[in-house]
Amino acid sequence: MATRMKLKLKTVFVLYFMVSLLGLVYALMQLGQRCDCSEHDLPKDRTISRLRGELHRLQEQMRKSDATKQPQKQPARPTIFVITPTYARLVQKAELTRLSQTFLHVPQLHWIVVEDSPHKTPLVTDLLVKSGLTYTHLHMPTAKDRKLQEGDPSWLKPRGVEQRNEGLRWLREDGRAQPGGDSQQGAVYFADDDNTYSLQIFEEMRSTQRVSVWPVGLVGGMKYERPVVEGGKVVRFHTGWRPSRPFPMDMAGFAVSLKLVLANPEACFDGEAPMGFLESSFLQGLVTMDELEPKADNCSKVLVWHTRTEKPKMKREEALQAQGLGSDRAVEV
Amino acid sequence: MATRMKLKLKTVFVLYFMVSLLGLVYALMQLGQRCDCSEHDLPKDRTISRLRGELHRLQEQMRKSDATKQPQKQPARPTIFVITPTYARLVQKAELTRLSQTFLHVPQLHWIVVEDSPHKTPLVTDLLVKSGLTYTHLHMPTAKDRKLQEGDPSWLKPRGVEQRNEGLRWLREDGRAQPGGDSQQGAVYFADDDNTYSLQIFEEMRSTQRVSVWPVGLVGGMKYERPVVEGGKVVRFHTGWRPSRPFPMDMAGFAVSLKLVLANPEACFDGEAPMGFLESSFLQGLVTMDELEPKADNCSKVLVWHTRTEKPKMKREEALQAQGLGSDRAVEV
Repeated sequence: MATRMKLKLKTVFVLYFMVSLLGLVYALMQLGQRCDCSEHDLPKDRTISRLRGELHRLQEQMRKSDATKQPQKQPARPTIFVITPTYARLVQKAELTRLSQTFLHVPQLHWIVVEDSPHKTPLVTDLLVKSGLTYTHLHMPTAKDRKLQEGDPSWLKPRGVEQRNEGLRWLREDGRAQPGGDSQQGAVYFADDDNTYSLQIFEEMRSTQRVSVWPVGLVGGMKYERPVVEGGKVVRFHTGWRPSRPFPMDMAGFAVSLKLVLANPEACFDGEAPMGFLESSFLQGLVTMDELEPKADNCSKVLVWHTRTEKPKMKREEALQAQGLGSDRAVEV
Repeated sequence: MATRMKLKLKTVFVLYFMVSLLGLVYALMQLGQRCDCSEHDLPKDRTISRLRGELHRLQEQMRKSDATKQPQKQPARPTIFVITPTYARLVQKAELTRLSQTFLHVPQLHWIVVEDSPHKTPLVTDLLVKSGLTYTHLHMPTAKDRKLQEGDPSWLKPRGVEQRNEGLRWLREDGRAQPGGDSQQGAVYFADDDNTYSLQIFEEMRSTQRVSVWPVGLVGGMKYERPVVEGGKVVRFHTGWRPSRPFPMDMAGFAVSLKLVLANPEACFDGEAPMGFLESSFLQGLVTMDELEPKADNCSKVLVWHTRTEKPKMKREEALQAQGLGSDRAVEV
């Protein structure tokens, strides 16, 4: 009887031992993964968890309502990396505001904003945080001797060269280290902050294999410039000036695949290139005219416009400032 | 012997039970606190902005799919009726494109586009159809003697007067006849097609009771113009020119409640008003300075910018056209 009792107890003990061992092993595994959240500032963590909660609720809601409609698994969409050089000026916040509103409509877009500045400015930092976009904020001051001076005509020196190159450096060095950054699926586009972009152009460029091209409106003293396509291939360029340049295209008229950018670590913009040859300085090591992929319905549609915003006049501001009645400098414009 | 053995086993069992229970409790606590460490390397701001972006996109998506389902679930949000005068020019499509992208983020917005033209143009018609917005497309040509001529300075004659009045007429006559048009819940805003609008400004104006006001950036030769608020009331205006005007404000700086527009069927813009008095000609019959509702944090934030887009130069286009090599007229720009 006692022996049977002992046996039964032993069995229970062994069983319990095994079960609790599993619990212990699990606890130890948890210890290994442990991260100390208390180190990080609480308000942000709270914001993150609140946002995650809302996101989760919405996703659940959508899953339920979508369940009857369509299978929910979509193929991974290539990311569009948009590199935007920007510099401080009166219209900067306005320009970045409307540009961010455009990008907010584009799925799977990563905005790389590079300030021409020795440091990140609060204006751009704040705008990006509030934008709702996935972004990377960089800065790279233009060397003094390469910078346009007040009053210089805008064509005298190319603007944004060192900033675009800094964006490329980030993609090659830091971007790769991001989660999923090694997939090389994506397109790289150089979008200045004063142009106008239709939403369609982003879907056109998303499938870029090497270098895709399309028309740009209101550029170079023309209604539009564009690659001329015959039999599905680019055979020449419609442009008002030096069509013999290797790639007589505006910055807004092409996208390059991330794969090609990463495979050619030396490709960058040459600030010393003669006027009109900046785009060519980047593209000529990457692709031949024959390899260009025409988009926008064989380059027959204008989906990007090289708009330029007037520099606002400040005559009355200056007159009032002279009387000590100028606008409050604390108000961000 | 057996009893002692049993006792010892029991003690060991109890002790082991307590120890492993502690382990289990710890494991459970870990589960509760669980946090995703892989994201801690990324700056938190980026995580927050990414989450905000995803949230925004989902909300947009849901709004779109909800729009087709049933609108009765949410408490009725006042509609924002945006009246935009527009006229044919090289940058028109670009301007309307980016403006429509802004409006597409704003819930319950009805865009009233009034072309300065004897007929609706295909360019604007097509753009509106594809915009995804709720809109009304009108046209009203400006009388010849009131029209700016090529080369006239832009301040010589006010632009958009008859178009804004046509928008008001539509609200009073046809808009009322629309389903729900008699609810009188809403705000009326005059948004020119070249300005820049933050999304925030639309939420500010949505609750307009009579006339709401806020600062406008980069206008009138100033960094900004704004109503000056003391004790929650507008007491004067910060402007660089004739502050004695009844309402020295830009068109982009105020919204009027639909109720007030409908209750004052004679209120309209006077094209014969002296320069700078156009806004006053409309507002002075509707409201007194004392009644203005200051928005944008007591008029301390600039949420709208009076940006102006440069007229593109067409020198090369003209040279090429002279040789019969101009841009294809069939391509819409």
